[in-house]
Amino acid sequence: MKLNGVADLPEIRPGDDIAALVAERAALEPGDVLTVASTIVSKAEGRTADLADYPVSGRAQEIADRIEAVAGEEKDPRFAQAVLEESTELLIDCPFLLAETRFGHIAPNAGVDRSNVPDHDLLLLPKRPSESAKRIRAGLAQQGIEDVAVIVTDTCGRSFRHGQRGVAIGWAGMPASRDWRGEHDRDGHELGVTVQSVVDELAAAANLVTGEGAGGTPAVVVRDWEFGDHAGSNELFRAVEDDFVRQALREWSFDDT
Amino acid sequence: MKLNGVADLPEIRPGDDIAALVAERAALEPGDVLTVASTIVSKAEGRTADLADYPVSGRAQEIADRIEAVAGEEKDPRFAQAVLEESTELLIDCPFLLAETRFGHIAPNAGVDRSNVPDHDLLLLPKRPSESAKRIRAGLAQQGIEDVAVIVTDTCGRSFRHGQRGVAIGWAGMPASRDWRGEHDRDGHELGVTVQSVVDELAAAANLVTGEGAGGTPAVVVRDWEFGDHAGSNELFRAVEDDFVRQALREWSFDDT
Ligand SMILES: Nc1nc2c(ncn2[C@@H]2O[C@H](COP(=O)(O)OP(=O)(O)O)[C@@H](O)[C@H]2O)c(=O)[nH]1
Ligand SMILES: Nc1nc2c(ncn2[C@@H]2O[C@H](COP(=O)(O)OP(=O)(O)O)[C@@H](O)[C@H]2O)c(=O)[nH]1
Ligand SMILES: [Mn+2]
Ligand SMILES: [Mn+2]
Ligand SMILES: [Mn+2]
Ligand SMILES: [Mn+2]
Repeated sequence: MKLNGVADLPEIRPGDDIAALVAERAALEPGDVLTVASTIVSKAEGRTADLADYPVSGRAQEIADRIEAVAGEEKDPRFAQAVLEESTELLIDCPFLLAETRFGHIAPNAGVDRSNVPDHDLLLLPKRPSESAKRIRAGLAQQGIEDVAVIVTDTCGRSFRHGQRGVAIGWAGMPASRDWRGEHDRDGHELGVTVQSVVDELAAAANLVTGEGAGGTPAVVVRDWEFGDHAGSNELFRAVEDDFVRQALREWSFDDT
Repeated sequence: MKLNGVADLPEIRPGDDIAALVAERAALEPGDVLTVASTIVSKAEGRTADLADYPVSGRAQEIADRIEAVAGEEKDPRFAQAVLEESTELLIDCPFLLAETRFGHIAPNAGVDRSNVPDHDLLLLPKRPSESAKRIRAGLAQQGIEDVAVIVTDTCGRSFRHGQRGVAIGWAGMPASRDWRGEHDRDGHELGVTVQSVVDELAAAANLVTGEGAGGTPAVVVRDWEFGDHAGSNELFRAVEDDFVRQALREWSFDDT
């Protein structure tokens, strides 16, 4: 398995055709997986915003005031308002915001980003990242490049562990997971680990090449990796009924007394 | 960046020298990262066990009875006992066990595994996986292979998302994370994402090659990846004070009424 960053992509602007820009720079082959950082997908889709676009609601003001009191540094209530407008549920509202996006991904600040956005204050996540992935995949097909899976990635924290990792937020042309149910281990027993979230693993792998800084390699080509002869599953985001961490967070609140 | 599975490793037995077995089969080079599945580290360290080794405490019986009632299938209280003995805290006790291991990793069943263990019922995680990684690294040095980082991996679920992914549980010869604090984005702003957990990303990448089944490729060589010129951090497991999910889970309990 090999990973190569796509070199020399320009600063992405609204309306840019990511598939065409990548196809000009990388000799994609059938079976490749192309990962694309959500940052450039959002830029191409015009998902930038400015703090001035977010008149502050009472709830946003309350959130910003409380975090400000706890953190001891100024918080812009318009940022809290942007996060509220991007989410369907706030799981943590203090001392930071953990929110579910409209497409089911749970991330700090609903993935609203303040880095790598020229001329604007904020970059929102793509509205429907799997549809973005599908469009990029269709764009590649238009360039004569068939049978390439596309993963839209973001960088995100993880419960119980420090630090952030690459994760998949949208995908097309492959299932999200290898389903090992019914397969067997070396001794013929049923497997304990049953569903391997390969889109997340591919996103994490790609993030090792992408990095977080000014490096400018938001697209990575994965070659010679095979999904293999397994069943596939397309469910990545948990529903609340079987999400115990979410249930617990709904009942919890930060003790700032 | 390239990943290659180490071919033809035998069934690992107590006392086996993993460094030597790998060195015989892979031409490691300075700068490589070697990932090793905890399964074979545990086998080499004799971390197998049998259900009969675990006389059932009242707490284990209670846990098994409750899960059995909820899940509607038989649960062996000796397995619950094994998990209790491997952990320092149970974060979820129903409808499944989520526990913190003695070395700080939080995993279902404290990582106690029933797959890929011949002649025994259970495979426990290595006692101190970072020390295991250090020993393997020292073993490689003894074979004349210097400057190879070693990561001990497991496969583990993730909050909010379906499926399991490769994660790092021990490492040696490299920091756990790239610390981007103080670095800047493409527009000269401070970065929002600050700590990139590269050992987890490497473990996830390797897991794409390893898989979960009978494939038999528990060691993977990562070549042409560079940590780069960043500060490093060695903290991977969160302390409870800044772990809000753990705090929330402590207060939560499954509603089985
Ligand atoms: N060529 C190019 N690289 C970009 C652009 N925007 C961001 N990047 C790079 O893309 C990578 C990922 O950026 P990041 O903000 O971490 O994306 P995220 O993980 O999706 O939030 C970094 O290497 C950035 O330098 C762009 O418009 N053009
Ligand atoms: N060669 C060899 N492969 C093994 C052995 N035990 C497990 N494996 C393989 O190692 C890989 C990872 O096994 P798994 O049980 O998922 O490890 P974990 O992720 O650390 O819990 C799979 O491809 C197994 O087939 C062994 O003793 N020898
Ligand atoms: Mn982002
Ligand atoms: Mn990123
Ligand atoms: Mn395991
Ligand atoms: Mn595994």
